[in-house]
Amino acid sequence: MDVNSLSPISLARQLGMWRSDAGGGPAYRQLARALRLLILDGRIGLGVRIGGERDLARALGISRTTIAAAFELLRDDGYLLSRQGSGSVTRLPGVGHGATPDPDALTEEQAPGVIDWTNAALPAPQTIWYAYEQALSQMPAFLSGLGYEVFGIARLRRAIAADYTARGCPTTTDQILVTSGAQHGLALLLRLFAGPGDRIIVDHPTYHNAIAAILKQNCVAVPVGLPATGWDIDTIHAALRQTGPRFAYIIADFHNPTGRVMDPDTRAALVRAARATHTPLVIDETMAAVTLDKPAPPPVAAHDPHGDTVISIGSASKRFWGGLRIGWLRADAQTIVALGRIRSTLDLATPVMDQLAVAALLDGSIRADGDRADIRARRDHLIVRLHDALPHWRVPVPAGGFTLWAEMPRPEASALAAMTQSLSLRIAPGPRFGVNGAFERFVRLPFTLTEDELDLAVDRLAMAEARLRTRHGRVPDAAWELEAQRVI
Amino acid sequence: MDVNSLSPISLARQLGMWRSDAGGGPAYRQLARALRLLILDGRIGLGVRIGGERDLARALGISRTTIAAAFELLRDDGYLLSRQGSGSVTRLPGVGHGATPDPDALTEEQAPGVIDWTNAALPAPQTIWYAYEQALSQMPAFLSGLGYEVFGIARLRRAIAADYTARGCPTTTDQILVTSGAQHGLALLLRLFAGPGDRIIVDHPTYHNAIAAILKQNCVAVPVGLPATGWDIDTIHAALRQTGPRFAYIIADFHNPTGRVMDPDTRAALVRAARATHTPLVIDETMAAVTLDKPAPPPVAAHDPHGDTVISIGSASKRFWGGLRIGWLRADAQTIVALGRIRSTLDLATPVMDQLAVAALLDGSIRADGDRADIRARRDHLIVRLHDALPHWRVPVPAGGFTLWAEMPRPEASALAAMTQSLSLRIAPGPRFGVNGAFERFVRLPFTLTEDELDLAVDRLAMAEARLRTRHGRVPDAAWELEAQRVI
Repeated sequence: MDVNSLSPISLARQLGMWRSDAGGGPAYRQLARALRLLILDGRIGLGVRIGGERDLARALGISRTTIAAAFELLRDDGYLLSRQGSGSVTRLPGVGHGATPDPDALTEEQAPGVIDWTNAALPAPQTIWYAYEQALSQMPAFLSGLGYEVFGIARLRRAIAADYTARGCPTTTDQILVTSGAQHGLALLLRLFAGPGDRIIVDHPTYHNAIAAILKQNCVAVPVGLPATGWDIDTIHAALRQTGPRFAYIIADFHNPTGRVMDPDTRAALVRAARATHTPLVIDETMAAVTLDKPAPPPVAAHDPHGDTVISIGSASKRFWGGLRIGWLRADAQTIVALGRIRSTLDLATPVMDQLAVAALLDGSIRADGDRADIRARRDHLIVRLHDALPHWRVPVPAGGFTLWAEMPRPEASALAAMTQSLSLRIAPGPRFGVNGAFERFVRLPFTLTEDELDLAVDRLAMAEARLRTRHGRVPDAAWELEAQRVI
Repeated sequence: MDVNSLSPISLARQLGMWRSDAGGGPAYRQLARALRLLILDGRIGLGVRIGGERDLARALGISRTTIAAAFELLRDDGYLLSRQGSGSVTRLPGVGHGATPDPDALTEEQAPGVIDWTNAALPAPQTIWYAYEQALSQMPAFLSGLGYEVFGIARLRRAIAADYTARGCPTTTDQILVTSGAQHGLALLLRLFAGPGDRIIVDHPTYHNAIAAILKQNCVAVPVGLPATGWDIDTIHAALRQTGPRFAYIIADFHNPTGRVMDPDTRAALVRAARATHTPLVIDETMAAVTLDKPAPPPVAAHDPHGDTVISIGSASKRFWGGLRIGWLRADAQTIVALGRIRSTLDLATPVMDQLAVAALLDGSIRADGDRADIRARRDHLIVRLHDALPHWRVPVPAGGFTLWAEMPRPEASALAAMTQSLSLRIAPGPRFGVNGAFERFVRLPFTLTEDELDLAVDRLAMAEARLRTRHGRVPDAAWELEAQRVI
């Protein structure tokens, strides 16, 4: 039996307990569903021959008719291809008849040979397909409406509110506005709270697209430097008092790019400082679900007893998949109404289909949380590889999120990024995450690539760094010097 | 046989030619598909009993096994409910077991008894479900990517470009950026071209959300009044010369709220005026597909031989369904790249699923264009009803779009809107479509409601108008006076 076929025994083992106890419909449909999941999951590869209906029937202890009906369904749905005399071969619908990926599914960045090490995002857990499938079955009820749901569909708003409540932050449906992603949520908040020239306090470094959004709204980003660990609440408090910002934008878990998490006491102190200065606190929770070691503390909003200080930005992108483009805002009900009113100036509403899919994921009808063990392994793999290849770099271990914030001995991140480019590697240099050219000592390195890709990327990074040293005639510093710039 | 059941003969007649010649899959699946379409379309109502597999088999000339298999599939998918001893009853998946609509599918505006006469939008043609179904089958290829497609997926960009080319305006894929709806497209253009205090020329009246978007970007809307018919190019040209606007925002077909269409000579003159003053011309084509009498002329962009003056905003909302939330921008390739770059400050990308659905609709794989004959009939019905109930109003016949722009003898639209509110009718008074309180003589009346709803709405409107007259002790003017305000 060649490598591209799967024996009935192996297949039966893969299938495991495929039959649900009750309510799962006829056996052939349950079997088809289980096989489809294995194919979508990648646990059965594409182009793999699944032979012998008779042997498989024996291995599974069911009738051959059930097998035949299940295979017919899978063929009709595009998951199996029958080849004369050689059984059935796995495939994916809409991907042609082989394992070649659809060229439309490739983004422009994926030019052959080039490694894009700038994106902190993962492909979808393949089970997300089932969330879309469930959403499709629920669409007819919505097609008879106009499709514009400014605040989001009630089902999703309820599921999001329930999720906050389960995380220790009691929330009602009218405190939720569904957005077209976290970035859209920030754009809405800027539109509601800030005019030209207004100041917004940000962590420094912070998410580069947040800085860009603030600047494009003609506002001023006021950076408050992150110390070596944690947050410096005294400095934040002073900035809140002295600069009169429209709001402070903070990523408490897990901070992008550093991956750090804010402890509960600091959360409470932060809310107190914001309350004392009557400043709204905008907490970006995009990465909150990507916890890698211990569970994340309750949301910052849980420390806001009056519920009028903290506004939370959430997202399905990192928790489930970026292609869903669904996020949300949590605030007091009056702020939600005000946000709904100005929303028409940006995009009117969020697609119904994707809202239904995220509702199915959040309420647990479909399980598609990313595999955290896998991403933790990639983080650890990258740290070890960097330690081997670039021992003179400092690489703190992030508690969550998708990125390392690696520190170089010299401020040459931009030069390094230009050098890696010539080695077919794209990296995000530190200044992208700062204001006015700060963080030339840093690069953000996501561990969302596969371990093989990470190995290749680290090789190219080390090679670029060596070339840079040669060009400058430098040797790496033996001693580590702290520079003021690090804590801007 | 009671009214809630469908005889096998009637059902066979409804089904017509349900069997495709080739490639349609097994007969039971084709039959199930055809039945599902009838249910989704509303041609078979919900809660209708479909009896007698044996009789139906005879009526259709196929085996009873095929019928049984088709019914089983429909039951599994939620389109049929089997009731002991009384055959199968039609239903919709996700809508409970009866014909009661899902409360989640109701928007907040749909409070019982209140007629919302402000939205110029239609429910989805039910066949749009098939576009989502096709999209679902194509999702697996995209799930292995990150899901962020800043410019949109290639398949949709190609389909949009092909659609422009077919409309007489040759277009390449790199001239297209997929947006999250037309309003999002305008927000992107404002972000790219305009800063605080910058001027934007608009038709007057114009789409109310465009005015709101311009003001929220801290820009100034410079209104150029529409004459009694057509556009006044000389005045537009003068405004372009004298006010130095960042761009002009024009709705050439079909103008919202007036429903007028710009003739080809005027289109050419408009592009010449914009070129002469080096001003980008932003043409909103949201309504362009909603042609009610004769075909719309080629796009304004077809009159821009150098391709560097006209930027077109398109949308799937009115052509297919608002709940898709997909739009696009067409411009020269460099402008598209620049738009892609600043997009990250607003929302990063548009959902993949909905892009695939719109691609299927645009390339003709799925037919779901709205029924124009139906909407034309509603327009004509509303005009006749208004003529009967409010003969002293002027109601021009729009060439396309979804709205009438009705003119009253006196400037009291806001008072009228307040009065209708007390009669459980919401209308959009003229000032909403103007700058600084203009258009108090006008109301925008969409004909997207059903004829029964329109009758009810006109009754309430006339009643409100009569009450207003009584309150003011006025009689309607016998002679019609033109006021300067009309052509501001």
